[in-house]
Amino acid sequence: MKNTRERILNQGMELLSQAGTPGVTLGQVAEQLGMSKSGLYAHIRSKDEFLVELLDRSAGLAQQEVVGPALAAPPGLPRLQAIIKLWFGWSRRAGLPGGCPVAAALFELDDLPGPVRDKVLALDAEWRGLLSELTRDAVRHKHLPLYFEVEQFVFELCGIYLSHHVSQRFYRDPEADLRAEKAVQGLLER
Amino acid sequence: MKNTRERILNQGMELLSQAGTPGVTLGQVAEQLGMSKSGLYAHIRSKDEFLVELLDRSAGLAQQEVVGPALAAPPGLPRLQAIIKLWFGWSRRAGLPGGCPVAAALFELDDLPGPVRDKVLALDAEWRGLLSELTRDAVRHKHLPLYFEVEQFVFELCGIYLSHHVSQRFYRDPEADLRAEKAVQGLLER
Repeated sequence: MKNTRERILNQGMELLSQAGTPGVTLGQVAEQLGMSKSGLYAHIRSKDEFLVELLDRSAGLAQQEVVGPALAAPPGLPRLQAIIKLWFGWSRRAGLPGGCPVAAALFELDDLPGPVRDKVLALDAEWRGLLSELTRDAVRHKHLPLYFEVEQFVFELCGIYLSHHVSQRFYRDPEADLRAEKAVQGLLER
Repeated sequence: MKNTRERILNQGMELLSQAGTPGVTLGQVAEQLGMSKSGLYAHIRSKDEFLVELLDRSAGLAQQEVVGPALAAPPGLPRLQAIIKLWFGWSRRAGLPGGCPVAAALFELDDLPGPVRDKVLALDAEWRGLLSELTRDAVRHKHLPLYFEVEQFVFELCGIYLSHHVSQRFYRDPEADLRAEKAVQGLLER
């Protein structure tokens, strides 16, 4: 029973990563696993609940792949730089075949109110909060200027992440990493 | 006959803008228009062809809303700044209720090869090409430094656009425009 649920969630993660939140249908998950739809409903209550669980899983992977290792870096700017470096391209390293599900959902769900949008909002806001906190910490450590504009920095940093995502995932541009590093460096030095 | 096709395309544009490429199903368009699916097939040959046509329409709207008016500005930096200003938030002004379809598709279709991805790639590459050209033109007019890194600038500019899209469309942040303007200004001055 537990293994079946695990298989369903794994299949869902793959589908979510590749086709985004609108592409996750319980019918398709059932088909891909060779199950009946009613068989699937023994494990999954609704598409929304399923998506919320998959998004929580994504966040768990990011925690493991990005946040945990970054916190091992010394506090202040080194830690901020570590989390940025680990963040960019994290989904590929986490084994998500199709890129960061939350980044995609920010574009997919802007007009679709409901529990899935709420979950994406909560996860993304938490992430931005963590970035702001680490940035303020770098200011406190005097690694960044006293009047460094933290919210503006996080806004622009998220832009570089999204542009990197597009260059790497959509354009398959081999220079994506380099461009992103340069952009972050420029932003920190401004 | 022509009116029916027009109604189908309008409905498709609304759906595309709100739910993205994975959300456009011919079944849903038929249902929203109170048509039968076979009735729809008299006008639309396949989902892919439909999406390609909708994306072309989006590009036509952008041409009308962004490119045309920007070309009225004096050449060099003023024209570059005009196109950036008109670009940010263009989809709302163009009457697309759910944001820029191409921006969303960059995240949705990264792993889905086919004619729709090809169309998105072509449109986005054309757009980046235009931005690069206008930037180089500003360099030629000596409005930007001789060694201004044009490709890096376009990469970062696209990031600011995406971050603005998320702030405005997903977060409904009233400061989105201001943040984006500040980011672009900082980028131009670097």
